[in-house]
Formats: sequence, structure tokens, C-alpha cells
Amino acid sequence: MSNKPNLHTCLSPALLHLYDVSNSIVVIIDVLRATSTIVTALNNGARCVIPVDDVSRCKEIGKQMQAVTAGERDGKIAEGLEYGNSPFEYPKEFIEGKTLVLTTTNGTRLLHMALDKGAREIVIGSFANLSAVCDHLVEMKKDVMLACAAWKDRVNMEDTLFAGAVINRVGENFTINCDSSHLAEKMYEKGKKDLFDFMKKNDASHYHRLMGFGLEKDIRYCLSADEANVLPLYKDGKLVLK
Amino acid sequence: MSNKPNLHTCLSPALLHLYDVSNSIVVIIDVLRATSTIVTALNNGARCVIPVDDVSRCKEIGKQMQAVTAGERDGKIAEGLEYGNSPFEYPKEFIEGKTLVLTTTNGTRLLHMALDKGAREIVIGSFANLSAVCDHLVEMKKDVMLACAAWKDRVNMEDTLFAGAVINRVGENFTINCDSSHLAEKMYEKGKKDLFDFMKKNDASHYHRLMGFGLEKDIRYCLSADEANVLPLYKDGKLVLK
Repeated sequence: MSNKPNLHTCLSPALLHLYDVSNSIVVIIDVLRATSTIVTALNNGARCVIPVDDVSRCKEIGKQMQAVTAGERDGKIAEGLEYGNSPFEYPKEFIEGKTLVLTTTNGTRLLHMALDKGAREIVIGSFANLSAVCDHLVEMKKDVMLACAAWKDRVNMEDTLFAGAVINRVGENFTINCDSSHLAEKMYEKGKKDLFDFMKKNDASHYHRLMGFGLEKDIRYCLSADEANVLPLYKDGKLVLK
Repeated sequence: MSNKPNLHTCLSPALLHLYDVSNSIVVIIDVLRATSTIVTALNNGARCVIPVDDVSRCKEIGKQMQAVTAGERDGKIAEGLEYGNSPFEYPKEFIEGKTLVLTTTNGTRLLHMALDKGAREIVIGSFANLSAVCDHLVEMKKDVMLACAAWKDRVNMEDTLFAGAVINRVGENFTINCDSSHLAEKMYEKGKKDLFDFMKKNDASHYHRLMGFGLEKDIRYCLSADEANVLPLYKDGKLVLK
């Protein structure tokens, strides 16, 4: 018997209820684009990111804290908010020292689900901070849940690929009795040579959605490793750097 | 725009609510072992197979119809039933002309979910009848939902592989705007050379569960194509041959 901690992958928020995460580090994965944007804003000096469930709460907190309000619904800036969900909207010159209140379709919702389930720790994962996530998981030696935000609960390719990338790097440090994890890793192995090309060739639904909005630059950034290699942790309602 | 019908894959019963299947042919997939066994029993001359949700109803109907009662819970013959869920329990000499009442952990439950959602047609899929399923889907030219029974709602490898096998063969006849389908197909491409070896190497959870019961022969059979190449359809509460 192995004494390694367990690692699982949950391919959709609609499957999270199947798992006990009370002893796990939950990695929230919403590659296109919530978690890539959170990581980028923090790397560029944002004081913290406050993830909220809905638009009205986003506006309310933004007002209270004189913070930047941002968020999207169905891939577009939500009505009444100032900024969207593109990592390129948060360069150092703009976001340094500021608080960002963010609401997104899938990512923040999943984070609150993990919180409600009593996750031991919640961290933010994206290709932009792949190494920081992997280093943390190896260092902590705790059970891990790689939680994909998916798209309206439907499994998506990019979050699955990121789960696969993590497993590819740190899998040998964990006991993995989880077919979803093996599926994710195989998928990543197939695509790792050129993730953008893989998404394109395989007709990834989100690839088409964002390309339709003219966001190729965002997709390419969000699929690149270690562009903003910091580790956001959830603490007292805020995402802050480790 | 394409006029091809749509094809989706649902990797777990817990995700079925995300899809409207009222215009779709739903393929119920429970490779290890419910759908492989249903297909085999019908190919060997069973008059029909009646899928039921629970063990007590299985016994009740079995008595009423003087039928063979069978089913498993957690991979073992359920208490009070006569037979289990192995295709090898239903050779021609035994099952020909008989009615089989079957309850299984995941497969029959999913079938009833699809029924409740008003599926246009329900058919049974397994590697044992891969060609029959594919031929039917191409011939019908209707929307398709490949519905994986999974294991207690957790995504599993073998059902995903079968969905991938179907897509690999008939995908070009359909519009596929569904990342789960692309994941399944990629997975199948990786494993198709030797599915048994793929399941073993990738630590498929069900592979270990059944190997632990000494069922390697069952696994090998259930991963082999066209061993019982007939098409079971659900009609008036029964599974019968097309």
C-alpha cells in the first residue's frame, strides 16, 4: 500500500458532490479565462481579488471598497461592471495596488461550491501559473482535487487539459484512483506539443466561442505555461498571493 | 452551415440533465458489464430483457413472468437473484427463448433516466455490438446522445472509450459541438490498439475492481468488438432486437 496522498479530477461542477474535499487542496481551474485573469492580476500587483457569485454583489462590494469591478456573462462584460475577463485588461500600470472584484460564469461559482463543501484549502490554477501550482501541491503532501469549472456544467477541453498538465508533472507524488484523472492526462499527452493547435483541430467549443469574439491573443496567452507564475490562495473571502 | 444531425457524449448520468434528448437516439453505454450482457443474452436467443431499477422489483417481475432474474450490486450477484452480470452466464443453451429481468448498479438506472427525459429512442451499446450501433446511427440520421453509465456517477474509462469508438467510426456523419465527444475520441485513438492493455496501464478503476473478482475473461470479452452484433431497442418496457 502506498502512503502517497490521493489526487482526483472533477471534470464538472455538477460532479463535485460525489467527492469529499474536506481534507483536500482544491485547485479551481477555469483556464478560459477566469483563473488566468486572477493569476495575472495578482502577478501584476493587484492587492487582492475578491471572487463573487453575482453581478449585483460585484457592484456593491466594488462601491464599498472603491475597487475595480469586473466580470463576464456568456463571455462578454456583464452589464454595470467596468472591466471584463481578459488577462490583458490588467497590466501592472493599471492594477498595481488595487483590489479587483470579479464575477465570472463558471469559475467563481465553482470556488464557492468548494468553499461550501469545506475544502481544506482553495488555490487558483491556470497554465499561467502551472509551475507554482505543481510546486505547491508537491510541497504540501495533502490530498488534491483538480476541479474544472467547465462551461455551464458541460465538460470542456481546456480545463481538462490543465488538469492533465498538472498530473503529467506531479502525478508520481500521488495515488491516483480516478479515471477522470487518467483521461485528463492522456488528453494532455496528446495535445501538449501545441495546445492552441490541439484546441483548434479538435473543435473545442470554447475555442470557437472566443475566436468568434476576436480573442485569439487571449487564448494563446491562457494556454501558455508560467506567464504569471504565482500562487493565489483563498483566505477570508479574498484571493491573495501565497 | 451543416445539415448533419448533432452528436453529444454525456460522460456521467449526473450530467444528463444538461441535455435535451427528446429528439435524440440515446445509446446507453455500460461496457463493464450490463450492456455487454444484455447484447449477449439477446444475441443468444433471449426473448427479451427487462431492465428494472431495483432488486425487489426484479424478483417480483421474475415471479410474475417466470423469467430469469439477474443483477448485481457493487459488482456481485444481488441477494435474492439467481444470476449475475457476466455475459458468460447467458449461453444459447441456457437463455434461448427465455425472458431475462436484469437490474444493475449503473446501466439500468441510466436507461430509466433517459426514458424519464423523453428520449426519442433508446438503444443499447457495447463493444460487443459496436458495428450494429454504428450502422443504426448512420442509417437513422437523427441526433444522437452517447450516454455513459459511469460508476456511481463518476466518469469511467471503458464507457468513455466506447463513446470514442463510435465517434471514431461514424463521427463524420454528425455535427459534433461537444468537448466530451472530442475527449472520448482522442482517448479511444490512444487506446484502440489494445484496449485491455490500455485499461491496465492506465489503472482504470473498474479494471482493478473486476480483476479483483477474477474476471479477466469478462473484461477481455467486454472490450472486444462485434462478439454479439445485434441491436437491442427499448420498446414498451422491454429490450428487444431491432
